[in-house]
Amino acid sequence: MTISGKLTSIQQKNQSRLCIGLDTELTKLPYILKSKPESIFEFNKAIIEATVNQVCAYKINFAFYEQYGAEGMVALRKSLECIPENIITIADAKRGDIGNTSRAYAASVFEEMNFDAITVSPYMGRDSIEPFLEYDNKIVFILALTSNPGSADFQRLISNGKPIYRHVVETAHTWKCNAALGFVVGATHPNEVQEIRTYSSNSIFLIPGIGTQGGDASATMKANGDAPAIVNVSRAILYASSGVDFESKACEQAQRYQKEIGM
Amino acid sequence: MTISGKLTSIQQKNQSRLCIGLDTELTKLPYILKSKPESIFEFNKAIIEATVNQVCAYKINFAFYEQYGAEGMVALRKSLECIPENIITIADAKRGDIGNTSRAYAASVFEEMNFDAITVSPYMGRDSIEPFLEYDNKIVFILALTSNPGSADFQRLISNGKPIYRHVVETAHTWKCNAALGFVVGATHPNEVQEIRTYSSNSIFLIPGIGTQGGDASATMKANGDAPAIVNVSRAILYASSGVDFESKACEQAQRYQKEIGM
Repeated sequence: MTISGKLTSIQQKNQSRLCIGLDTELTKLPYILKSKPESIFEFNKAIIEATVNQVCAYKINFAFYEQYGAEGMVALRKSLECIPENIITIADAKRGDIGNTSRAYAASVFEEMNFDAITVSPYMGRDSIEPFLEYDNKIVFILALTSNPGSADFQRLISNGKPIYRHVVETAHTWKCNAALGFVVGATHPNEVQEIRTYSSNSIFLIPGIGTQGGDASATMKANGDAPAIVNVSRAILYASSGVDFESKACEQAQRYQKEIGM
Repeated sequence: MTISGKLTSIQQKNQSRLCIGLDTELTKLPYILKSKPESIFEFNKAIIEATVNQVCAYKINFAFYEQYGAEGMVALRKSLECIPENIITIADAKRGDIGNTSRAYAASVFEEMNFDAITVSPYMGRDSIEPFLEYDNKIVFILALTSNPGSADFQRLISNGKPIYRHVVETAHTWKCNAALGFVVGATHPNEVQEIRTYSSNSIFLIPGIGTQGGDASATMKANGDAPAIVNVSRAILYASSGVDFESKACEQAQRYQKEIGM
């Protein structure tokens, strides 16, 4: 099955475009779990089991694991192994470096860890991203217009009458690409989701910014229409409760977002 | 001692602005070392011992270690421990994400691993970089104009009469910063090194692109003048010989670049 087929298939099966971001932090774990790196895996496993029928993808943000050193990376790998084969796995790593270095990052994430997808940063241009695009049956999400306040600093600068994020999207479409091409576009910018869809109608959007960051799910999904999209929520689901009921509350929140995002 | 003091002190002591990038790849190791992850550390240790009086810094590029999984990360940590206390250690990770995520990356690199410096990508703007800038006595190198061909794709787009890389440098100077502010500017662009020095005279430049990438050391150093700079060479030193004499050849090449770069 192609990666696009895998995405369509799980979205249909679970009737969901929701992705849960496993941005797990020790200081935010429910009080019944001990504050030690082993608990990260224990927590993730519980969250995955509680929400596995509500999602199409899980996104693992490397920062949260790297900060706990080797034990954190063990937690990352064990969490990844817990995710059923039919669900999309996204390495949220925002990598990007000169060609030979990006090649090593791609090998790490796509081969050594066997993720389905990765997020990459476009600042260094074509040769920093092409090593990722060479892979068949992987999704490469290039940062376009991110959900955070700092997205206004450089992504929205106008050059030749177009914002930089539009240059990124249009230019990326001209690159040789075996992978499925995707872009990160924040739900905090529904108007721009609609605008970007006018020149990138079939790419896969990874849409963060709903939940704690305050993005508008229904406006964003209306703007995106039927085009392929994966919508991420992290903290608002993971930390829905800090008590013994954290799993059932996470599941409730996942169902709420699944419905709000719609199909 | 402040981080700037540490840099000046080692540059004076060793009479060197050279940094060696430990971009170690199994397939390029000398034939006398076995092609297994443990050899990465063995090789790095030999290179560090052979060149320790020729450098002011070592730069560890995370990609090359992450691609070998947990064993690669062990090699990274053990290599880091081999670097003498008085030499600057740079985490070449090109990180950058939304605020709470960048905070975790900063904790990982500056606290958990205790690197002196990091490279970060500016695409996501202020809140993606501020968590790094909060640290006293660390150097934060923001990508400005990178050494690779893809630097032309977005970094050189003109907005309001100025290239994007100039927006990055000028804007970064307006951000709250406890750390020592630095920029990555490739030696493949000596004219722009000179231009950027007109509006960023005291920041620390991390200058890659000399050696395999073909940058011009003497033109670049002339353009930079006396401003603080660390000049990186990776492959041309690491893989100077694939034979039994790899340590002495690496030392010879390091001496050659040390002289070419000058003080």
